[in-house]
Amino acid sequence: MRTLIPFILFIMAAAPAAAQNAGLDARLRALEDKEQIAQVLIDYGRHLDSRNLAAYASLFAEDGEWVGGFGTVKGRANIQAFMEKNMGTGPNKAGNYHIMSNFATTVAGDTATAWSRWAFVVPGERGAAISQAGRYDDTLVREKGVWKFKRRTASNDTAPPAAPAQGR
Amino acid sequence: MRTLIPFILFIMAAAPAAAQNAGLDARLRALEDKEQIAQVLIDYGRHLDSRNLAAYASLFAEDGEWVGGFGTVKGRANIQAFMEKNMGTGPNKAGNYHIMSNFATTVAGDTATAWSRWAFVVPGERGAAISQAGRYDDTLVREKGVWKFKRRTASNDTAPPAAPAQGR
Amino acid sequence: MRTLIPFILFIMAAAPAAAQNAGLDARLRALEDKEQIAQVLIDYGRHLDSRNLAAYASLFAEDGEWVGGFGTVKGRANIQAFMEKNMGTGPNKAGNYHIMSNFATTVAGDTATAWSRWAFVVPGERGAAISQAGRYDDTLVREKGVWKFKRRTASNDTAPPAAPAQGR
Repeated sequence: MRTLIPFILFIMAAAPAAAQNAGLDARLRALEDKEQIAQVLIDYGRHLDSRNLAAYASLFAEDGEWVGGFGTVKGRANIQAFMEKNMGTGPNKAGNYHIMSNFATTVAGDTATAWSRWAFVVPGERGAAISQAGRYDDTLVREKGVWKFKRRTASNDTAPPAAPAQGR
Repeated sequence: MRTLIPFILFIMAAAPAAAQNAGLDARLRALEDKEQIAQVLIDYGRHLDSRNLAAYASLFAEDGEWVGGFGTVKGRANIQAFMEKNMGTGPNKAGNYHIMSNFATTVAGDTATAWSRWAFVVPGERGAAISQAGRYDDTLVREKGVWKFKRRTASNDTAPPAAPAQGR
Repeated sequence: MRTLIPFILFIMAAAPAAAQNAGLDARLRALEDKEQIAQVLIDYGRHLDSRNLAAYASLFAEDGEWVGGFGTVKGRANIQAFMEKNMGTGPNKAGNYHIMSNFATTVAGDTATAWSRWAFVVPGERGAAISQAGRYDDTLVREKGVWKFKRRTASNDTAPPAAPAQGR
């Protein structure tokens, strides 16, 4: 009988700590997921604006999809080629960029949805103008442990520009 | 005496783990609170801009208060009726929206203060304009486990528009 | 032999919990660091825009450095004096402010790098204009447990204004 006491104590001591840790781990993971997805939303604009279109395409899942003003394109490699065609491969001499804001993300296991706002800022002679603005509606997937766009839909709340393509 | 050893070991093993977990829990809660409050600040604009004024009003405490360009109104139901009157109940055909940014939040137990910036973006013929911009000063309260606005004060750093109401 | 059992159990019970806690602690710290640095990036604009230049300067390390349109200045006290000269010490009557966005932060121990976007919003007769916009490239250091700018470089993607200094 006496030899059972340590076992009972072991279970008493170890079980609650393990259960508590499991709870802490799940809560941490929820915050980490939101943080990591926020970074994907920010990197999308950062890599697009700096014309690092390989890094831009790497934010999409292998079979990820982009839907927006330029059309629809599916597959990471296709997305890169598509954006290179539409945005060019040279540096962004205009210095235009996207303000990303208002992230609303919902995670469910290894998939997530995100909603956010973009404003496309174009420097000019006197300060800058918001030449276009709209929304992103995203589904994301955890692929090999990293959050990727499964499908990004870029909607425009302003009239698209008549002349040179500016992307979003 | 020998039978005391397991008890002593139990305390040695369990107590530090429990204390550590309590520390981890408090740190996690601090991050979760900031994250949840940030979402309230974002949802405020999201629900206002999409004219989902029931969801908008649900962000306020039962006796929450809104102070801004339209006046002052207190109580969740009153806030919804007030905004329906001032913003209308139809869809937001203009596609205008708020960029929410620069969140500074301080949490103290079940209450919090937040400071942030808003810019009201209005799409036009050629791109978009920031028609108004200002600050929010908030007090929040944890009501039934959920962060709500106890009092939101929306200040305008631009001259209010002469003609149609555009809210903030 | 029997007396060894509790010791073995103690190690079995305590060691994994301690290891798990160490892992949780490191993950928490990673999130806390990002959160604290984000607050530094936000407070930079908040204190600058409210002309609280003592609080502004306190965001820099003792030997921190600021590089931007006004020139280069090193040392916390020098930064405060430099900004008081360039921005004035009176209230910000124009109500202009910085939208801070697109934070991308990488932490490595007690140092970090951050990249972000700024848009300088100036209220006018009819709404507001983005008079200038650009980027921040930062290195940060944890000084006495608090994240501080080691070096902030403010770049301008728009032409600087001809007349009154507006800072960033």
